[in-house]
Amino acid sequence: MNILITGGAGFIGSHLCDYLSGNNIVVLDNLALGKKRNIEHLLNNSNFKFIYGDILDDELLDKLFTSVKFDIIFHLAANSDIAKSYYDPNVDKDNTFLTTYALLNKMKKYGVKKIIFASTSAIYGDTTDVLHEDYGPLKPVSHYGASKLASESFISSFVENYGLQAWIVRFPNVVGERTTHGVIYDFIKKLKNDSSKLEVLGNGKQYKPYLYVKDLIEGILFVWKNSNDSLNIYNLGVNSRTKVKEIAQMVIEEMNLNAEIYYTGGDRGWIGDVPTFNYDLKKVNTLGWNASYTSNEAVRKSIQYILTLGSS
Amino acid sequence: MNILITGGAGFIGSHLCDYLSGNNIVVLDNLALGKKRNIEHLLNNSNFKFIYGDILDDELLDKLFTSVKFDIIFHLAANSDIAKSYYDPNVDKDNTFLTTYALLNKMKKYGVKKIIFASTSAIYGDTTDVLHEDYGPLKPVSHYGASKLASESFISSFVENYGLQAWIVRFPNVVGERTTHGVIYDFIKKLKNDSSKLEVLGNGKQYKPYLYVKDLIEGILFVWKNSNDSLNIYNLGVNSRTKVKEIAQMVIEEMNLNAEIYYTGGDRGWIGDVPTFNYDLKKVNTLGWNASYTSNEAVRKSIQYILTLGSS
Repeated sequence: MNILITGGAGFIGSHLCDYLSGNNIVVLDNLALGKKRNIEHLLNNSNFKFIYGDILDDELLDKLFTSVKFDIIFHLAANSDIAKSYYDPNVDKDNTFLTTYALLNKMKKYGVKKIIFASTSAIYGDTTDVLHEDYGPLKPVSHYGASKLASESFISSFVENYGLQAWIVRFPNVVGERTTHGVIYDFIKKLKNDSSKLEVLGNGKQYKPYLYVKDLIEGILFVWKNSNDSLNIYNLGVNSRTKVKEIAQMVIEEMNLNAEIYYTGGDRGWIGDVPTFNYDLKKVNTLGWNASYTSNEAVRKSIQYILTLGSS
Repeated sequence: MNILITGGAGFIGSHLCDYLSGNNIVVLDNLALGKKRNIEHLLNNSNFKFIYGDILDDELLDKLFTSVKFDIIFHLAANSDIAKSYYDPNVDKDNTFLTTYALLNKMKKYGVKKIIFASTSAIYGDTTDVLHEDYGPLKPVSHYGASKLASESFISSFVENYGLQAWIVRFPNVVGERTTHGVIYDFIKKLKNDSSKLEVLGNGKQYKPYLYVKDLIEGILFVWKNSNDSLNIYNLGVNSRTKVKEIAQMVIEEMNLNAEIYYTGGDRGWIGDVPTFNYDLKKVNTLGWNASYTSNEAVRKSIQYILTLGSS
């Protein structure tokens, strides 16, 4: 099978490459957030090709779609640094939305029929309600969430107008090997600077599900193989959650420190942050998929990975 | 009050100008669909200004926002010809979505705090379910609907990030004076070409609410004045519907013809058409607003308007 993975050198994309190896894989990544070392071990495979480039490079995309007839696209490329685009919404409009739109147009032009889209819990907005796939109204609070919802919107209209088939999988926070940023990273960095104290943004009560990256990949592939509507929409997640306060404690524990935890106060880490959310996973659980690791286990694995990396 | 009305020379926008006259109004319209004759009667008012230009003209927008400190923006500019963008999705991506995005950025840059956004029932998709504002998942079938939903998404994130206040009003089919296209127009045009028969796209059973344009304007203003959340989302419509078959009959009747009606068959007029929908208007009705004219009355008024126009 010919597979295009955008953002394939990134944290999540590179794991997808591992799981799909054996197929003809083309990774398109501008290495804005992705890292070549994430896919280094695949570069010598004859059926693996890495292209350094940007989805918004129209000529490059035409060349790519002309040279390979893709069976399916896994579209993971996006700006995943949510806090950043507060200062410049174009970061998300361009890298998270217009990339999707550009791909959809090439699918239309070159007759590529299937797309799997990495969406997000951030499309729902800031609410303590339990979030089923039919929840509404959708009120994203970050430009990241807005861009992903805008992407979903056009995926829907392209599916209807041009006979595409799409799987929209809405990720929660994802952690594990090759993670590049986020709360765990921040805590470790702070403690390496000053091992006596740890500043936590917000009141520490932010309470979210953290999904282990390999669970996520298995979930994506499961949904793809087991649902067959023209437009398939699934939350992917884990039925447990972790408080930011617990993450802080786990990080201190794994680093064998005795640091004191300070809270900056307020109910969220930054504007656009969603302090707490609760996924309804009945749809994907009923389809037959469950995460293997709890949210706490996933967080601990991620801490251990980052610490190993730092000492290597 | 300083008011910017984008698309103010259009079918709906020009009625809004009439209702808001007395305020300082600036209309920005590229006359792609709008017509100067719709606002001709206002051009001599000292507090009414018409600017011929495009929202995507960044320099023009900067000049405009520098010269007037707007209290509120009514953003109605869009590609409203849904069927057209099947052939070129960019029509809607640019004119319906990126226009909204550009305005939001200027609001952020120049400190304009309030926006009223003309959204649409097309964001919900093709379903026979009763459509309350909390309906999901949203699966727009036209690029027009996708662009409006993408616009709503960014309005939501801009409201959260920069302290804007927004009113999103989701329109159904709107008819009445100054209408420029749509099923009524098409029927009259066909009958003027050949008064003996009328071809109807689909099976004639498409069943939708048609809202009289003056009712719509009053609804928009009512929602604006009577809701005060940071993000206010309302369906606007009428609690009755009209079959396309009935429209055909009314047109023939009003033209005093004896034409035979032919149906092309199929459950919809074109790809991207939503053959039937049913608005839940409890939210706006509870707020205190109801349309004055039924769907059938609105359709008949629109037919009479177009016929008068043709004979003038």
